[in-house]
Amino acid sequence: MEESAILLIACPDRVGIIKEIAGFIADNDGNIMHLDQHIDRQANTFLARVEWDISGFRIPKERIKEEFSRIAERFSMNFSLRFSNCTPKVALFVSKQDHCFYDIMHRFKSGELKGKVKLVISNHEDLKPISDFFGVPFFHIPKTKENKESAEERELKLLREHDIDLIILARYMQILSPRFVHEYPNRIINIHHSFLPAFPGAKPYHRAYKKGVKIIGATSHYVTEELDQGPIIEQDIIRVSHRDTLEDFIRKGKDIEKIVLARAVRWHLENKILVYDNKTVVFT
Amino acid sequence: MEESAILLIACPDRVGIIKEIAGFIADNDGNIMHLDQHIDRQANTFLARVEWDISGFRIPKERIKEEFSRIAERFSMNFSLRFSNCTPKVALFVSKQDHCFYDIMHRFKSGELKGKVKLVISNHEDLKPISDFFGVPFFHIPKTKENKESAEERELKLLREHDIDLIILARYMQILSPRFVHEYPNRIINIHHSFLPAFPGAKPYHRAYKKGVKIIGATSHYVTEELDQGPIIEQDIIRVSHRDTLEDFIRKGKDIEKIVLARAVRWHLENKILVYDNKTVVFT
Amino acid sequence: MEESAILLIACPDRVGIIKEIAGFIADNDGNIMHLDQHIDRQANTFLARVEWDISGFRIPKERIKEEFSRIAERFSMNFSLRFSNCTPKVALFVSKQDHCFYDIMHRFKSGELKGKVKLVISNHEDLKPISDFFGVPFFHIPKTKENKESAEERELKLLREHDIDLIILARYMQILSPRFVHEYPNRIINIHHSFLPAFPGAKPYHRAYKKGVKIIGATSHYVTEELDQGPIIEQDIIRVSHRDTLEDFIRKGKDIEKIVLARAVRWHLENKILVYDNKTVVFT
Amino acid sequence: MEESAILLIACPDRVGIIKEIAGFIADNDGNIMHLDQHIDRQANTFLARVEWDISGFRIPKERIKEEFSRIAERFSMNFSLRFSNCTPKVALFVSKQDHCFYDIMHRFKSGELKGKVKLVISNHEDLKPISDFFGVPFFHIPKTKENKESAEERELKLLREHDIDLIILARYMQILSPRFVHEYPNRIINIHHSFLPAFPGAKPYHRAYKKGVKIIGATSHYVTEELDQGPIIEQDIIRVSHRDTLEDFIRKGKDIEKIVLARAVRWHLENKILVYDNKTVVFT
Repeated sequence: MEESAILLIACPDRVGIIKEIAGFIADNDGNIMHLDQHIDRQANTFLARVEWDISGFRIPKERIKEEFSRIAERFSMNFSLRFSNCTPKVALFVSKQDHCFYDIMHRFKSGELKGKVKLVISNHEDLKPISDFFGVPFFHIPKTKENKESAEERELKLLREHDIDLIILARYMQILSPRFVHEYPNRIINIHHSFLPAFPGAKPYHRAYKKGVKIIGATSHYVTEELDQGPIIEQDIIRVSHRDTLEDFIRKGKDIEKIVLARAVRWHLENKILVYDNKTVVFT
Repeated sequence: MEESAILLIACPDRVGIIKEIAGFIADNDGNIMHLDQHIDRQANTFLARVEWDISGFRIPKERIKEEFSRIAERFSMNFSLRFSNCTPKVALFVSKQDHCFYDIMHRFKSGELKGKVKLVISNHEDLKPISDFFGVPFFHIPKTKENKESAEERELKLLREHDIDLIILARYMQILSPRFVHEYPNRIINIHHSFLPAFPGAKPYHRAYKKGVKIIGATSHYVTEELDQGPIIEQDIIRVSHRDTLEDFIRKGKDIEKIVLARAVRWHLENKILVYDNKTVVFT
Repeated sequence: MEESAILLIACPDRVGIIKEIAGFIADNDGNIMHLDQHIDRQANTFLARVEWDISGFRIPKERIKEEFSRIAERFSMNFSLRFSNCTPKVALFVSKQDHCFYDIMHRFKSGELKGKVKLVISNHEDLKPISDFFGVPFFHIPKTKENKESAEERELKLLREHDIDLIILARYMQILSPRFVHEYPNRIINIHHSFLPAFPGAKPYHRAYKKGVKIIGATSHYVTEELDQGPIIEQDIIRVSHRDTLEDFIRKGKDIEKIVLARAVRWHLENKILVYDNKTVVFT
Repeated sequence: MEESAILLIACPDRVGIIKEIAGFIADNDGNIMHLDQHIDRQANTFLARVEWDISGFRIPKERIKEEFSRIAERFSMNFSLRFSNCTPKVALFVSKQDHCFYDIMHRFKSGELKGKVKLVISNHEDLKPISDFFGVPFFHIPKTKENKESAEERELKLLREHDIDLIILARYMQILSPRFVHEYPNRIINIHHSFLPAFPGAKPYHRAYKKGVKIIGATSHYVTEELDQGPIIEQDIIRVSHRDTLEDFIRKGKDIEKIVLARAVRWHLENKILVYDNKTVVFT
């Protein structure tokens, strides 16, 4: 399979941006495979994702970023460049619940998700056997109110050592400090077990049950300083009825959590998500 | 088609309740067509809906309620009795938006909803032609801060004169006073254009758009004193993306509003909804 | 609101197509509002939809097609050009069922669908009052085995006289002849009341009921010679259970039929549908 | 948690059936927890599921079946009796694909599914490591045209030795012989990767892709002699678009397959499925 380059671009809108991008690619013998462009009319902002075949591209892979920067500057672009053949390095954070953990590990193992899980960090030891089965190093870092700062220091050290690109909170029941979050902007994906903005914070299924909703949901989002307020990446829902107990809410919700988290991770790894005004543009 | 009687029952749970109900019906030659029973284990509450064929029932229709009351008392039941052949009298409240109004009028006219729309009340004159087309009297009762009390008095007078059983707020943009609500407990159905409890109150689509949600919804509920906090009857959702403008949110939402309102009205008219602890049990 | 031009393009893929299109637009001071491009890798086919603001475009509206043809020829493009401000002329075909008819008429009337319903043709007189209410001429053209050819001749004559761009079969229960279909290729949209390819042809709800499916659906598609085999535009579904009678299947299905038909019509009118290999590419 | 008994009943409808059942339960101090009853009007058939608390039930567990048989005979009932605390013995059949296998094993392990997986049978060795991880014996029984009969004999021997109650075909790519199927009527659950009755048989995703459908699905059903024609238990769907390749269809479908299979297994194990006229009544 050929290799491709993927550009995500945001900039003030004006005439001729696509001409310039498409020219840069065609003039160097690249063939565009996907181009998806969108204008936010209110903000007059140009948003696009371009993917092109770089087998035979005249600019060597390692110099594409530099060469494109000249165009980027001219149009005041924010852009990110990635290559389809690269393998992002991933860290998973888990606590005691294993459904998202199993699910995401299996997706990486089967090749459905393109990336390499380098390590698993948990505040409990319960899920170590699963980590072992999948052959991924497991680090047990307990957290208490007292040791939170030093525990995070250990975590950050591990993440840096492994050169982690993406952190997945697979039902990790701890809140990360602002300092931690700032080190990985738009690179920490959390799954929250409610249909946000309904029921942020603790025990969303309990509150949904008490409220008598007819549908429950799950939301994957990038982690920001404010709890459960980061840019939403994906949501999905499932019906419940009066016949469902609180335990049924929790059980049914798990299936949605797994899927909603996996989609977000997939889109992130495929460089399909552009964060913008605390919202996401997902080029699917 | 035969006529049936429908009982909705809530009472403290104990051994033998269904035996008693089924005995009452069978001993009088009634044949149960549907029986759906549920126990709320936390509250130890018995909840049921029973529908039986009353052609050939030995107790005359008009005396069933009285006869059943003896059982009801013994088990401290709250119950309501309705007959499939009765035709509830309905009032619609509308403002300027016509999508729910059209939709619900058509469903009544086609016989999909069993009931008789006796009158339409609106604080604007815009929708009178639609009312005329469907042959339903239209009452224009403008509302201002100053005249709200007297306007409601006029409305209540009309509702009483027409012996209204059910009030449908089909995107009626006015808040009803507690006094009004109290006169029709669990008999006023509203459609709110968000997935409650997210975005109660004004302009939910605007807020959903700003928040960057990936799914929008609509919620039908009984009106209580607290705005958009009444027992939820039904909810449904539709996907949105970054390509959808605020206008698209509003347009897509309309389809959901129509369906979610129609389902709630249908279930109410079929005596399928039991209100309980500010939640609904919907026997579908 | 500004006016835009919309190009739908299909051609053999090769390097530089977008550069050429974007160049054509930018060099004439047009600003691209949406560009959505896709490659069918198996067939090596380039597919795209481009929409750009033509206020201030240097080429007059009436000459854009001609000017663009030079590029089109060079790349062996099939393309269609439309303008956002034009108002397509629409004909509706109906029989006795009114739910899709009401729904689609209301969407045109409210401006949700951009187009002008010029006439309604029916093999029955039943729905004339609705046509009258919406102020659209209604033509009653009965059809029997014997008169089918002459009836279609009358229909075609009316369609030509009114210069119809799009024909909507809103639950029209007659099969159109190949000759008729050929005159309006990819310009006749039908709603079929099943999840195709399951249950093509007559009485799909009856067959779905007998089969015991747990979900029913509806499918909108362009009409081709083969019954219910044309390119699928949109599908949607709704859950059913053993509690649903055949009548419930039919009733529930109606809500889906309305929505699925309306979406197809909308996308067609917005020039978002490209037909290709008996499939559709819908640029949403 | 208390133990309950669950009755599934089908019989000709007549007056007094529930009275009799509820009487049997109440007179022996049993408390009904769920009663869900339905009449098939066309066939005049009574269908019900009753679950009651048997802690304190006056009839010992092992004699309930016999005692109830007297009522059953009088009403010509087909019935099955199960107890909530029993642990059905389950066999899994798999081939090379692991997504459903992982998923279902995890659900059993976590206690979400109540049952004991006694053995895994496969015509390939690929999935043995997963079986090992979950601590379940794995039997590799290769199948060719020539050895099919003897291979099935070995399988049946294993199933009998382990006293298997339920067989799950978790993407087992072999067709079972009628003889095999007859030995486990309504006790073999298959997952088919299409929205039946569309695309029965081989390569449904390929055919769905070629057809250009906008939604794909999965169907769980009991296995009967006719391929993919057994009673449907559950179905679900997911959207696809022109952007999805065949590989995307397959990937997206997996998530639906897992969920649809798991729901069917769950309902079977909870004694919620009544098979009737080659259809299922699922008392959820």
